Amino acid sequence: MSAFEFDHDVRIASAGEAGWHGHVSPGWNIGANPNGGYLLAIAGAALRAALPAHPDPLSVTAHYLKPGLPGVDCQVAMQVLRGGRTLSTVRASLVQDGATRLELLAAMGDLGTAAADTSVLRPPPPEMPPPEACVPRSPGEQGVPLPIVDRLDIRLHPDESRAGSAGRARVGGWIRFRDGREPDPLAALLFVDAFPPAVFGLLGAVGWVPTVELTVQLRARPAPGWMLARFETTDLLDGRLIEDGMLWDATGRLVAQSRQLALVRLPGAGA
Amino acid sequence: MSAFEFDHDVRIASAGEAGWHGHVSPGWNIGANPNGGYLLAIAGAALRAALPAHPDPLSVTAHYLKPGLPGVDCQVAMQVLRGGRTLSTVRASLVQDGATRLELLAAMGDLGTAAADTSVLRPPPPEMPPPEACVPRSPGEQGVPLPIVDRLDIRLHPDESRAGSAGRARVGGWIRFRDGREPDPLAALLFVDAFPPAVFGLLGAVGWVPTVELTVQLRARPAPGWMLARFETTDLLDGRLIEDGMLWDATGRLVAQSRQLALVRLPGAGA
Repeated sequence: MSAFEFDHDVRIASAGEAGWHGHVSPGWNIGANPNGGYLLAIAGAALRAALPAHPDPLSVTAHYLKPGLPGVDCQVAMQVLRGGRTLSTVRASLVQDGATRLELLAAMGDLGTAAADTSVLRPPPPEMPPPEACVPRSPGEQGVPLPIVDRLDIRLHPDESRAGSAGRARVGGWIRFRDGREPDPLAALLFVDAFPPAVFGLLGAVGWVPTVELTVQLRARPAPGWMLARFETTDLLDGRLIEDGMLWDATGRLVAQSRQLALVRLPGAGA
Repeated sequence: MSAFEFDHDVRIASAGEAGWHGHVSPGWNIGANPNGGYLLAIAGAALRAALPAHPDPLSVTAHYLKPGLPGVDCQVAMQVLRGGRTLSTVRASLVQDGATRLELLAAMGDLGTAAADTSVLRPPPPEMPPPEACVPRSPGEQGVPLPIVDRLDIRLHPDESRAGSAGRARVGGWIRFRDGREPDPLAALLFVDAFPPAVFGLLGAVGWVPTVELTVQLRARPAPGWMLARFETTDLLDGRLIEDGMLWDATGRLVAQSRQLALVRLPGAGA
């Protein structure tokens, strides 16, 4: 059994007919709520356990129906919709206290089977000062406790480290586990939702930005070391924003893309 | 009853307990298969009919499990996972001949309720020559019949109108129904999948590029007239590509964003 916090906190056990059983730790909270990427990683761990031949989420979409409950057990129910040779399509629900928190739809595959890197197009990583020249994500930046930053070492680009300072809805930087666990596809599901909302760079810390829907495409298994991330919102309409993200590994290889639809309460926008 | 082809071909009737009943027309085929955006529009019509207070897909994800069958009836089964004040979350399956073709997960809302346009970020439309200076999408460009271009008037940017001519994986242009039907959110679901794959611009017409997963975020209801579209792939790895799209209406307003994970058989990439 791994001694790393993340492995402990995404542990999943088969519960037979009832699906899969886990526990939502309070250690990955943003304020009072478990981080959405952490909940997605728990569900991802269940999908991985259920589909050993197709352990990697080539594409996973999560809809956030209700906030998760920290410190409470969870169940993951799933249904394989299609089991193919190279990919399986599956839907799943993460349930706590009898209510679905996350509903998922995923195409699972095996990112370890590519004989060689045959990519012809690969977005390069952005320019980023080294981690030691970046600014640690602050535990109080959103006006709420951020237990997650005790687990994750997040270093923000100096120009994007304070809410409102970037002059645009963009945030980027480095991320790794504090306890030395190396990144993998499950970690990537957490990392794409662990930075401050990019919109804070433009509007300041405008409060909770709840995710309606998050889709992540895993592109490759990451190499060990720091990961580099960039998130940007160029489309904010009537209190609904779209945030795009990319995640590169320490070798500069693109590992994941993400997009989420989230809600933001604009100052002066009324009820 | 509307006399327009698209309205006729996405007609949905309640089948009580069995869900919703429709028919997949052969008129929107790409080669032997119904266009994926057309199938999504049929499912969208069923969601719209089932959720009159939340008729617009704020975010809809479709996984394509099997090709649709042209000229064959379909059933759409759905389950409302959460019914809220401002949005409903629902999953749905489009079934033909007893097999699920599309599995969907959607957040439905009402794009008509915004009192004023309070957007603060809006991606501007790209530079595009007027429709009369663009090149009609050719019925034979992919080496297969394209019945869909008898229904849709698609005009490609002159630099991106022939496969392989763009020098990059990009395609853009104008789109409207030939019979004068004006665009709406359902039409947007079709339009985001009606252009040639952007990767053709770089690699030439490399054959069928089957969609694994397509997510569309509707941002606004479109104004009447031509719509403007831009699709680009910057990430192609091991035969899996991500294509991003944006759709603007005739007033230059962003109406939809799309992203799909699709498969491409690369020349020389082996089996």
